Amino acid sequence: MSGELAFIEWLKKSLAQHPATRALPIGPGDDCALVDGYLIASDMLLDGVHFDLKTTSPELIGRKALAVNLSDLAAMAATPRSAVISLALPEGSDDDKIARGIMQGIFDLATEFNVAIAGGDTNRWRGPLVINVAVTGSPHSQGSVCRAGAKPGDWICVTGQLGGSLSGHHLSFTPRVEVAQTLHSRYGLHAMIDLSDGLATDLRHILAASHVGAKLERQAIPLRDAAHGSIERGLSDGEDFELCFTVAAETGRRLIAEKAFAGQPSLTKIGEITDAANQLIWDDGSPILWRGYEH
Amino acid sequence: MSGELAFIEWLKKSLAQHPATRALPIGPGDDCALVDGYLIASDMLLDGVHFDLKTTSPELIGRKALAVNLSDLAAMAATPRSAVISLALPEGSDDDKIARGIMQGIFDLATEFNVAIAGGDTNRWRGPLVINVAVTGSPHSQGSVCRAGAKPGDWICVTGQLGGSLSGHHLSFTPRVEVAQTLHSRYGLHAMIDLSDGLATDLRHILAASHVGAKLERQAIPLRDAAHGSIERGLSDGEDFELCFTVAAETGRRLIAEKAFAGQPSLTKIGEITDAANQLIWDDGSPILWRGYEH
Repeated sequence: MSGELAFIEWLKKSLAQHPATRALPIGPGDDCALVDGYLIASDMLLDGVHFDLKTTSPELIGRKALAVNLSDLAAMAATPRSAVISLALPEGSDDDKIARGIMQGIFDLATEFNVAIAGGDTNRWRGPLVINVAVTGSPHSQGSVCRAGAKPGDWICVTGQLGGSLSGHHLSFTPRVEVAQTLHSRYGLHAMIDLSDGLATDLRHILAASHVGAKLERQAIPLRDAAHGSIERGLSDGEDFELCFTVAAETGRRLIAEKAFAGQPSLTKIGEITDAANQLIWDDGSPILWRGYEH
Repeated sequence: MSGELAFIEWLKKSLAQHPATRALPIGPGDDCALVDGYLIASDMLLDGVHFDLKTTSPELIGRKALAVNLSDLAAMAATPRSAVISLALPEGSDDDKIARGIMQGIFDLATEFNVAIAGGDTNRWRGPLVINVAVTGSPHSQGSVCRAGAKPGDWICVTGQLGGSLSGHHLSFTPRVEVAQTLHSRYGLHAMIDLSDGLATDLRHILAASHVGAKLERQAIPLRDAAHGSIERGLSDGEDFELCFTVAAETGRRLIAEKAFAGQPSLTKIGEITDAANQLIWDDGSPILWRGYEH
């Protein structure tokens, strides 16, 4: 086992044995955890890993830092409430211009989603730019949608298109907050995850948490133009920040027929949940071996 | 005005004008913000700024990352509830050993304070080690203690000793969570802050928020041995992570006489609040010009 895998196994075991953590109604293995009556999540963005400060405006970088967190809340069908922002700014003549641009990008998206900026921490150092955003949200009145709710026979659907996100979409995407809430209100979703590491990786999290498998329809995968027709890119590129969810087949049929959002974003059935735990296959029975994007 | 000051002024103004942020019961200008019924805070620790990975164990670094956040909750007299952890690990042969050590340090302190680990985000990159911790807490049943509650005539008190923290205390301090709760329950504190940047800077935050001044007793400042008898170090060194609070004079007299914690930590009256807004002076009338530690 590699050191990294060994660490992850150790961490999972430690979390599972930690009394205060075990007592959470929804623990740290999902897109957000549920603490008392609120959801919380956190994401760190690093220069050279999640964005490139040389080629991207601070406004777009700040926007992305909040947007990826709102996408985590969307994945639980939650309503965003607050964000706390930590910055490590590279020392230099224009560090305050960068800081202002980042915060402006965050403010603009926060206004759009009615998110309060509940605090933060600004540092200067000799390292590259780092932004951490942690968010809180209020759970959906019908309960949070977790990864562990998929049932054999469920339809698997995605919002929008997949693949090629790094050509621009990852900086400008709309977190699917409203879509998730409306879908859960109307159709009672069984399981959901946001697509950050690529469908091939993220769907496997639903399968593992729900102890089920999935059969995907190769022709049904909705591809972004920037994926240039490559199904592999659609399943592996990562940073789509669309939602993948499952619903009862009957409900799924209604959901697709009703075109709830007048087609924007599109909702596409891409496959079905099976009872073969952790097995991810195409509808012709061949295994899907691709893995998603690792930052 | 320097770029940094201009940024801070711009940020304050932007926060004050931001609708969702304005609607918070306690906004981002305090040690924690209050969102609906919970408090939230966030702190980022950087290698070479807040710790030195070459000379400090990962366990102590992880411990500090959580402890400084618990200190923010203590400053509001809150009960810690959860923490989300983001790591940026420097790529290398022992990055998983570092990650495990950091998380072990966090787990141990989290167990001590009954804090749930509610999620996180682990990244690897070519930069130095970065840890961000965001925490949530439940407010005190008698309400949160803010910076903006000091009244002329109040006694100003501190827990423990000040100065010289970087010789070791900053890695091993006990966040004053229980002390703060007990003090607020018994004595009804007026204002409080945790001492992270040095008393000379942090007390000024209470003065500014409360529109008052302070007169300190030079001989009363309790110094840590590592401050080597230097009052300037006691007021300026930073990273004390003790609490500075104000109470009505009458209550203060009782509080000091009762030695609530059998002397551990010590509680010391160091001065009194005056009505001269933002004026920080010694009891002989001379101004205190020192500033605290800037990271």
